Amino acid sequence: MYGLIGKMRAKPGKRDDLLAILLNGIDSMPGCLSYIVARDPADADVIWITEVWDNESSHKASLTLPQVRAAIAKAMPIIAGFDSSTPTEPVGGVGLPR
Amino acid sequence: MYGLIGKMRAKPGKRDDLLAILLNGIDSMPGCLSYIVARDPADADVIWITEVWDNESSHKASLTLPQVRAAIAKAMPIIAGFDSSTPTEPVGGVGLPR
Repeated sequence: MYGLIGKMRAKPGKRDDLLAILLNGIDSMPGCLSYIVARDPADADVIWITEVWDNESSHKASLTLPQVRAAIAKAMPIIAGFDSSTPTEPVGGVGLPR
Repeated sequence: MYGLIGKMRAKPGKRDDLLAILLNGIDSMPGCLSYIVARDPADADVIWITEVWDNESSHKASLTLPQVRAAIAKAMPIIAGFDSSTPTEPVGGVGLPR
């Protein structure tokens, strides 16, 4: 499995708009096992995205899907930047398909 | 929802042992919506744990469950420390119960 833990920063006041975009159109991504977006309670502009994919190729392929490309285009103007992006190798746990 | 993103450090050479302990007995934790453990490909001793709970109380209560207490006791001798632990407020996504 391939994972990512990302810390994204929205432009001031735009976090909820960005969350809505991130949650739209993520249900039909082949190979996506988990994709959870969260607010950072300590920073009003920060979103955490934790992802698990069956492999890295599926993640890369997802970036070419029409609905994902549309979401990225819509999100770009309200993203201030990425504080961090950490690849991981998920081993297992609750919330993954059996 | 209540989330946690933790970066745990195993004692040198003990990461796989620690992963096995962390994955044991996590299937019966009330209120646990997601609990995924992962290796850090950039550091041979690091484990990432990403958790989602229905609320913070369920997370706290889990620490008193017999199987969790047993796992913690077993894990403690091979944990070097916690590099970071970040609470989050999960909003939604793939891999959470509908």
